[in-house]
Amino acid sequence: MTVTYENIKVCKQSGARLGRVHTPHGTIDTPVFMPVGTQATVKAMTTEELKEIEAQIILSNTYHLYLRPGHKLIEKAGGLHKFMNWDRAILTDSGGFQVFSLGDLRKITEEGVEFRSHLDGSKHFISPEKAIEIQNALGSDIIMAFDECAPYPAEHTYVKNSLERTTRWAKRCKEAHQKPDQQALFGIIQGGMYKDLREQSANEIIELDFPGYAVGGLSVGEPKHLMYEVLEYTTPWMPANKPRYLMGVGTPDCLIEGVIRGIDMFDCVLPTRIARNGTAMTSVGKVVIKNAQYTEDFLPLDPNCECYTCKNYSRAYLRHLYKAQEILSARLVTYHNLHFLIDLMKQIRKAIMEDRLLDFRKEFFQKYGYEV
Amino acid sequence: MTVTYENIKVCKQSGARLGRVHTPHGTIDTPVFMPVGTQATVKAMTTEELKEIEAQIILSNTYHLYLRPGHKLIEKAGGLHKFMNWDRAILTDSGGFQVFSLGDLRKITEEGVEFRSHLDGSKHFISPEKAIEIQNALGSDIIMAFDECAPYPAEHTYVKNSLERTTRWAKRCKEAHQKPDQQALFGIIQGGMYKDLREQSANEIIELDFPGYAVGGLSVGEPKHLMYEVLEYTTPWMPANKPRYLMGVGTPDCLIEGVIRGIDMFDCVLPTRIARNGTAMTSVGKVVIKNAQYTEDFLPLDPNCECYTCKNYSRAYLRHLYKAQEILSARLVTYHNLHFLIDLMKQIRKAIMEDRLLDFRKEFFQKYGYEV
Repeated sequence: MTVTYENIKVCKQSGARLGRVHTPHGTIDTPVFMPVGTQATVKAMTTEELKEIEAQIILSNTYHLYLRPGHKLIEKAGGLHKFMNWDRAILTDSGGFQVFSLGDLRKITEEGVEFRSHLDGSKHFISPEKAIEIQNALGSDIIMAFDECAPYPAEHTYVKNSLERTTRWAKRCKEAHQKPDQQALFGIIQGGMYKDLREQSANEIIELDFPGYAVGGLSVGEPKHLMYEVLEYTTPWMPANKPRYLMGVGTPDCLIEGVIRGIDMFDCVLPTRIARNGTAMTSVGKVVIKNAQYTEDFLPLDPNCECYTCKNYSRAYLRHLYKAQEILSARLVTYHNLHFLIDLMKQIRKAIMEDRLLDFRKEFFQKYGYEV
Repeated sequence: MTVTYENIKVCKQSGARLGRVHTPHGTIDTPVFMPVGTQATVKAMTTEELKEIEAQIILSNTYHLYLRPGHKLIEKAGGLHKFMNWDRAILTDSGGFQVFSLGDLRKITEEGVEFRSHLDGSKHFISPEKAIEIQNALGSDIIMAFDECAPYPAEHTYVKNSLERTTRWAKRCKEAHQKPDQQALFGIIQGGMYKDLREQSANEIIELDFPGYAVGGLSVGEPKHLMYEVLEYTTPWMPANKPRYLMGVGTPDCLIEGVIRGIDMFDCVLPTRIARNGTAMTSVGKVVIKNAQYTEDFLPLDPNCECYTCKNYSRAYLRHLYKAQEILSARLVTYHNLHFLIDLMKQIRKAIMEDRLLDFRKEFFQKYGYEV
């Protein structure tokens, strides 16, 4: 198989799994956080810097790359890895989440989704087959089935119809996939916040036998305890010998809680997006760098951090850069935030190895200022 | 003296000087191009990257830093070098050029210039004494006298009054300078496009005995041949044992022509500004990366360049980044443009050493597409 999961151990304090995901572009230590490079670039970062902070895999977006610059151009360039100068693993989403988020600009039928481009209003159609064709052209290591992500809140009937369509589309994706020897197609479990529907979706999707599975439809506005509840009962239905990916999750608390419930892979735009708004994740909680309290604060962004930003620049300087709208502001805070989450995952893996992940959670939450 | 000039040789084909400028933060090989870091950051670059491309000295702006974050804050931070994490040489301008550029927002008197901030409209006053006080607080290695830069075109009488005021202000700057043992104050020769006025200004300013001299009031909209003419007769009046700085110049042709006429130091926002607009300086002329012709061009930005951008990314990718308004676009093109000009200065120094700068100019102009 193209992508395989190797389990190293399960934490004695929880269902957390320490493992490795082997891909055509290298092996990934899990649990892992994947920085998001929506438009074939992790915003404000070079791929060299991603390696410095030890990113092992990044995520890119099928919807965005299809519209611009176009998957055919990227195929001509030799694939997404070569185009963006990244020789480690890449996961691409299917574009489903993005087109569903277009609201009035899209129309869903059994065949697929008709939508208008957010860039120029032009009309497009993405079907399960098209989503796979695009991802085959991009050449990412892990590609995702085209699914329908129900909003929150949503009625039981709506979610049931939606998950059943997701199953039918998953089958079509599998049949359309042209490069199973080079790219691993992951299935996505839907079902909203309904236990019976999650179970139905898990059964149907796992029945199709994908090399990996994602939990979709979470982190869509529901309270965190609901997300944890869904994970709590869903992950035990997922095969132990395949990677488990929780889509769109990236706050430190959700990462830890997700790992505790058996998740291996995460992605989220949060660390890079808030960085550009001048907000840093640090070992002592959020630092909103524009705040006046940092005007004459010559300490590093995070005094406990060893990253390039924290070793070389002060909060006062970062605040100045932010106020002056300098590009270096986005760069330095993005670098720090991604380093922070990747380092957090490293600490999580260590805590699993030492069978103390629940203790680690308690310590981390106390320092970060979360309710314990 | 704080800053000294050491001449290595004069090119046998022209008045071009190969030399070294010794500063409290290291020795600079001249002729040199100084990247501009207006707001205590060379836009889109880290200081680590500036070292990678072998920048030896950068320029920063008194006017901007005075308004934001304030020179007192920077002094508290330990000076501009420490604040921005740059341990090589820094030159700061006096703020004169910026406040004069404010047009209706400023009022010039013998005492100084009253102006309104371009940020919030607040009222400020900068005198020669204030300009030096600010620069003393910033701690830059080379500080500039507060001068009046006449516009182009301007009447003889206007320019004469303006240069004479510049002389009186230069005297006041020298008297106000509190740290001559740590910071070298350079005088500025004005006089517009009038030979008699340039001579008068050169005599008056050089009489005041500064450790270095700048030619100001050029590159303000005049045709290039006028600039060359002024340099042609002005530099011979300047002492051979002091550095000579041509302010605000940074196109490849003007750099070469300036060196031929005996200039040692240059600065300009051009390479960084056009980079953010997607324009690259390359060995075969300008490349406007947004142009459709680069859509499927998988060559490097400059096939003859060895910089990080050119070694790792294609024109097609850079065009995509530019169209997608990604920060990485500004980063990669800025990196390349600064590398290009710094490398050009290296080639110029080599050509002086080999007594073939006029031949080099001919070869370079032909490749770049300038008229020879």
